[in-house]
Amino acid sequence: MTTNTECEFPVPAEANDLAAETPAPAQPAAGESATDVTEAVHAIARRSKVAARVLATATRSTKDAALKALADALEANATDIIAANAIDIDRERAGGMSDSTLDRLALNEARICAIADALREVAALPDPVGEVLRGSRLPNGLKLRQVRVPMGVVGMVYEARPNVTVDAAGLSLKSGNAVILRGGSAAAESNRVIVRVLRAALDNAGLPADLVQSVDEFGRPGAVALMGARGLVDLLVPRGGAGLIQTVVREAKVPVIETGVGNCHVYVDSEANLDWAHDIVLNAKVQRPSVCNSAETLLVHRDVAAQFLPRVLATLQAEQVTIHGDERAQASIPAGLRFEAATDEDWATEYHGLELAVRVVDSLDEAIDHIRTWTSGHTEAIVTDNVRSADRFVDELDSACVIVNASTRFTDGGEFGLGAEIGISTQKLHARGPMGLAELTTTKWVVFGEGQIRQ
Amino acid sequence: MTTNTECEFPVPAEANDLAAETPAPAQPAAGESATDVTEAVHAIARRSKVAARVLATATRSTKDAALKALADALEANATDIIAANAIDIDRERAGGMSDSTLDRLALNEARICAIADALREVAALPDPVGEVLRGSRLPNGLKLRQVRVPMGVVGMVYEARPNVTVDAAGLSLKSGNAVILRGGSAAAESNRVIVRVLRAALDNAGLPADLVQSVDEFGRPGAVALMGARGLVDLLVPRGGAGLIQTVVREAKVPVIETGVGNCHVYVDSEANLDWAHDIVLNAKVQRPSVCNSAETLLVHRDVAAQFLPRVLATLQAEQVTIHGDERAQASIPAGLRFEAATDEDWATEYHGLELAVRVVDSLDEAIDHIRTWTSGHTEAIVTDNVRSADRFVDELDSACVIVNASTRFTDGGEFGLGAEIGISTQKLHARGPMGLAELTTTKWVVFGEGQIRQ
Repeated sequence: MTTNTECEFPVPAEANDLAAETPAPAQPAAGESATDVTEAVHAIARRSKVAARVLATATRSTKDAALKALADALEANATDIIAANAIDIDRERAGGMSDSTLDRLALNEARICAIADALREVAALPDPVGEVLRGSRLPNGLKLRQVRVPMGVVGMVYEARPNVTVDAAGLSLKSGNAVILRGGSAAAESNRVIVRVLRAALDNAGLPADLVQSVDEFGRPGAVALMGARGLVDLLVPRGGAGLIQTVVREAKVPVIETGVGNCHVYVDSEANLDWAHDIVLNAKVQRPSVCNSAETLLVHRDVAAQFLPRVLATLQAEQVTIHGDERAQASIPAGLRFEAATDEDWATEYHGLELAVRVVDSLDEAIDHIRTWTSGHTEAIVTDNVRSADRFVDELDSACVIVNASTRFTDGGEFGLGAEIGISTQKLHARGPMGLAELTTTKWVVFGEGQIRQ
Repeated sequence: MTTNTECEFPVPAEANDLAAETPAPAQPAAGESATDVTEAVHAIARRSKVAARVLATATRSTKDAALKALADALEANATDIIAANAIDIDRERAGGMSDSTLDRLALNEARICAIADALREVAALPDPVGEVLRGSRLPNGLKLRQVRVPMGVVGMVYEARPNVTVDAAGLSLKSGNAVILRGGSAAAESNRVIVRVLRAALDNAGLPADLVQSVDEFGRPGAVALMGARGLVDLLVPRGGAGLIQTVVREAKVPVIETGVGNCHVYVDSEANLDWAHDIVLNAKVQRPSVCNSAETLLVHRDVAAQFLPRVLATLQAEQVTIHGDERAQASIPAGLRFEAATDEDWATEYHGLELAVRVVDSLDEAIDHIRTWTSGHTEAIVTDNVRSADRFVDELDSACVIVNASTRFTDGGEFGLGAEIGISTQKLHARGPMGLAELTTTKWVVFGEGQIRQ
């Protein structure tokens, strides 16, 4: 599996111009009109399509060799990449980017090796292309099979971290697709050099350089043109914060997969193992609070609230978690612990940090109602020893992943054994939950006959 | 399989207001603003969502019994339905609808029985919901499975034929979804009564009537509100002519599956069995020229053009097929046969009738290039005895269905053994080619643990 595949938050809005309220800093070169940009981006997409055709019939050996060549090239060009990254870092530091975000933007030798190793791990994964999903011999003798084939041209719109540039290129290459990248302006220089290195390595490996292209030079109008390239872009995947994703979903005219908004819940049932519940809540909230599969709201059955809440809330507060409690939860908060009163906004919020909304409910039904009302459809967990409660929770909630007696943090392509993960889909069409290489493919029906005609 | 599942053409543009150039005849009631309509349609969608939750956990027995009850109710209310249909027929005849289109709109006892039988056939199909697609026990002991679950709320926008109203309701019910219907104004009265009958039958069967709702009363603004109901409609399927489908794809904010535009090709290779080729071309063009899997362009290798074209063109012309030939094809047209000169417009056109574009090509490469340039990505067929040509045709063309030595007419859910067909997808996301019940579902990941937390 690749490293750093989880959807991570928070990302400053300005990290990708798309989600910015203010005009984008990167603009098309003077004299370029929106029409010019659209034509330039469409020309890029047409070149991607031609390149993708070459890759569609490439063998796994060819693709894996190319992935390893890309990895080697990144390491061989680490000095150039780090120098470009320093320009981004200096500019963003001067622009007031926080230290933690700067840290995520920064590249060094070790990080470049880790990014290169991720490509080698993608090479080790099975090739999804060519898999026969089903097939049969029809009554009239026609031999029918449904075969997995590449999407064609995949667009990727993402935020600051430059490792996503490489991840996206590697996953697209392995799944037989050409990729068109649109990164954040904060990593513009890093991405520019990385794309240059990847393209040269593809060319050396005997594959079209146009398998990896970028529209970063065209600024926001370039992203808009990419989102509008209907018939030229087969799939667009946004990766980043909610602002970016919603902008892409709203504006795109090409097929989009919505990823990664996670307002996840843990419900502690009346018959729960409270030791498990304690550890699961703690893990779901604090192990990595910035990612989408961390928990945002804890629901506790009233029968166990008095026993469970003081203990878990004390632990959470010791871990610096701010508690937003409803009235009954507040009544269970031990003296001396700080809390804030929960409002509807808390139920709706994906905090991306060390904050947790807490509510006491009268029943499993009330828990299910609460989750149905507020969830983003990512992951919900129940802690219970009652098989009927577990079944109802699983059956009646309509989220991508429902978990019984384990942490929400397990919703992850790597944990699920899917290998590399391109994102976590919170929509229902095409892909739901962790998306691996297979989700970057489509299928084709192949029919062989001996002159059959329809009666 | 259901009857009448094929995408049929031509449909007059005015059959569904969405595709009409002129203002829609059906307008919201006086005093209703666009906002009122949007709110009314969203309220309908919210009721659908509630109803869908009830159905999501219903057993197959419950759903099949309901399908049979709907079939019985349609037959029991045939008189009312035929009376309503007569109103539509009279209005449309007065409005100048052609006899052939009137015939497709018309209902009688026999047709209502056929429509009811289609529901009974859907009942006999396996239930897609609950199917476990994959599962495993993870290294940490978590038990993981991916289960097929309903989409939730499915919208259907379609044209005149009232049987689609019943088909859509039946397929949605079987796959566990609530459906919101938007039919064509030409069938407004028929659909109104059919929906009333279906809703009453659902209620009698102990299921929510809101599993089947219509937004027809709100006219075009209702359709626009349905297409914009993001978060309330999980999937929208347009069914009808190219104008309708393109309008829905362009305007919808909810997930859409593009269906049914078929500019299909037959390529006769230099090493083809010309008897097969003759019968396949004839079948692909004339057996049912109005449907999307009929052929629109014939490509013939130059080495066999002089031998093959005179024979097949004579047969086609005897079947009243108009030939649009390129220069070299024209040279092979026997004296006395009529033809028209083919232009780029012919290569691009889905004729929906007894017309065929014909081109002579120098090579398989030229055939592949031609198809890549002009295809809508539905179905392409090659007639060849050469295994390498067959393989290249299959591998290098990127259409939903590629066929060797058989008619394009086989691209069909019924022929493929999928059972009922909701349409033929020409997009790559979620579903490609014939869509059965499974394509009206999504999946959910279910995880069972024993207190596991992530390390």
